Formats: sequence, C-alpha cells, structure tokens
Amino acid sequence: MANKPQILSVKTIAKSRLFHVQALELEFSNGVITHYERLITHSAGAVLAVPMLDADTVLLIREYAAGVDRYELALPKGRIEVDEDIITAADREMMEEVGYGAKKLTLLMSLTSAPGYSSQLTHIVLAEALYEQRLPGDEPEAIEVVPWRLSQLEELLQRDECTEARSIAALYMVRDLMQKKQLNND
Amino acid sequence: MANKPQILSVKTIAKSRLFHVQALELEFSNGVITHYERLITHSAGAVLAVPMLDADTVLLIREYAAGVDRYELALPKGRIEVDEDIITAADREMMEEVGYGAKKLTLLMSLTSAPGYSSQLTHIVLAEALYEQRLPGDEPEAIEVVPWRLSQLEELLQRDECTEARSIAALYMVRDLMQKKQLNND
Repeated sequence: MANKPQILSVKTIAKSRLFHVQALELEFSNGVITHYERLITHSAGAVLAVPMLDADTVLLIREYAAGVDRYELALPKGRIEVDEDIITAADREMMEEVGYGAKKLTLLMSLTSAPGYSSQLTHIVLAEALYEQRLPGDEPEAIEVVPWRLSQLEELLQRDECTEARSIAALYMVRDLMQKKQLNND
Repeated sequence: MANKPQILSVKTIAKSRLFHVQALELEFSNGVITHYERLITHSAGAVLAVPMLDADTVLLIREYAAGVDRYELALPKGRIEVDEDIITAADREMMEEVGYGAKKLTLLMSLTSAPGYSSQLTHIVLAEALYEQRLPGDEPEAIEVVPWRLSQLEELLQRDECTEARSIAALYMVRDLMQKKQLNND
C-alpha cells in the first residue's frame, strides 16, 4: 500500500448553515500535487437504527427527501447530538421517528457515504426487544411507519422509493445476521 | 401517503468547483413552512461497477479518500461524462481503475447517498465476462486492485478500510444474485 498523501494546505471556500466546503492541496507519495474539495460535516456523525419488531419484521419510515424531491422509504436516522453517545442517539431517533424504544441495542458497523469528499460517518445500530415509546421530533409532518419483512428485501428494492445506500446496506447486514441467528437456534 | 411539499423558493447560497448549495423554502401539505439546504451535483450522476472476474471473485480497488484522509477499499466508480450513457461510463471507469473491460454489463439499480439533502444518483452496474483492457485515468497515483471472494463478504466488512455504503449495498446485491444464479444452474 502506498504512503498516504501529505496535506499541504486546507482552506475553507464555502460555508452555509449545513455545509462547509474545504479546498485541499495534497502531495501524493510519488510527488504528484493535486487539488481536492471536501465537505466537512458539522455534527458528531449520524446514527441509523434497524428496529426489529420481531426476527423478520423491520420498521421503515416514509419521509419527504428534499434532495430528490419525493418521499423515500428508509430506516430511521439522524444526527448524534452534543453529549450523546451512539446508542442513546439511535434509541432517541427511533422514539422520535417510529414511536418505539429498544431494550437491546447493538452497534454493528460505521459506514461512510462519500469518503472521497466527505468525512461523514453513519453508525448502524441494530435495535431489538422494542417497546412503544414516543418522543416529539422536529419533523414538519407526521412520519409514516411501514413494517417490512426482511425475507422480502428483494421486493423492497424493486420499488422506486427505497434507494438510500446506507439503509440498503444495513438491511442486508441485519437480514444475514438474523438468518445466522435462526440457523444457530435451529 | 401525504401530498408532497410545495417548493416556495430556491436560492443558491454557496458554490465551489464541486459543490453547489441551495436554500429551499418548503410548505408541507399540513401548512407547516420549513427551510432546507440541499447539495446540487454538477454531473449527470455516477456509476459504480461490480467487476466479477468469476462467479465468486470481485475486483475491488484501494484508493486514497480525501474526505476521511485514509485509503478506502471499494468498488470502482466515477462520474458519467457528457454524452456518455450509464453502461459506457461503467465500462470506461473499470478500464481506467481496474484495467478490465466487460462483455456483459447489466444495470441493477440506482442508489441515492443522502436523499434528504443531495440529488446525486449512483447507478450500480454488474460487469461480467471481463477482458484485460487498460485506459489512462486521471488518478494521481497507481490504483491497487484487490480481488475478493463474495463468499467472504463478512470478513471484508470487518476490516476498517471497507466502509462505503454504496459499495457495500452493491456487493450484497451481487452476492445474492450470484447465489441465485448458482442455485438455478445446479
């Protein structure tokens, strides 16, 4: 593996409430100098919860997605607040978006969305042993909760409304994990 | 399902070579008015190729990722150029990044990365019947090609260097597809 490039300079070139764009000057180990742009995310990262109502039923949410200007069917997710850990954030997001808390929460993996130009991390948390518990969220309209069977994941992906890569990766991951647990129990 | 919110106004608030940030004013069907920010991507979208050397071996690449400032192991991907279709772009990216073209290319699905604030689409293309063919790319250093068995996907995800959600979703998708083909052939 090559040595990591050296960052020669970092400059903020654009900033809004949500986005912070930096220009980077990099020197690769072979001497090549290049200019990159990257997005710096303000927050401590994001969590994505996989709320399992039973061993096969996951709770999805249907929410307006401004980037693509349509409703998207995905797993509940949100930013980690200041002074909050990953597990607490996942539990809170579920209570706000699907109306459930979980007695068993497991961090499975941390995903990047665009490592080439963004530092953002999304932590995938499996949520089991759910109980009804609603917290008020900051959503502009009520969120629709859609139960779906992981054994019918393929049918879900054939719909045009479930496209978000982190949710899809997490659904496959949890489906495999659940199948393996099932096999070990049999 | 609720009626889609109405976009009351759109304003460009930041722009760099790569990023274009818009502020949106939205009115939801319940009358609530909110302000969002979204990223507009300049390009016609991106392609991500899944190059299968045989029914179980996929070709990954190890490339420097400026957003996270480390090397990332992922599938070859890149932007669709002007006047290029999805399939041609996937074939070209493979030739540039892994040194192979494909005789059989199949569009599997189009993924979003952050539909809440970005319009970007990544088209997943399965590439089979590979043949050696290299095209010069615009990469600042040579890219390392890493063959990996899809039957060992779990081991791959336990490494800290394979984290990109679109690649992981695509790897699961193709692994399932290959297993199903195998079953149908048996």
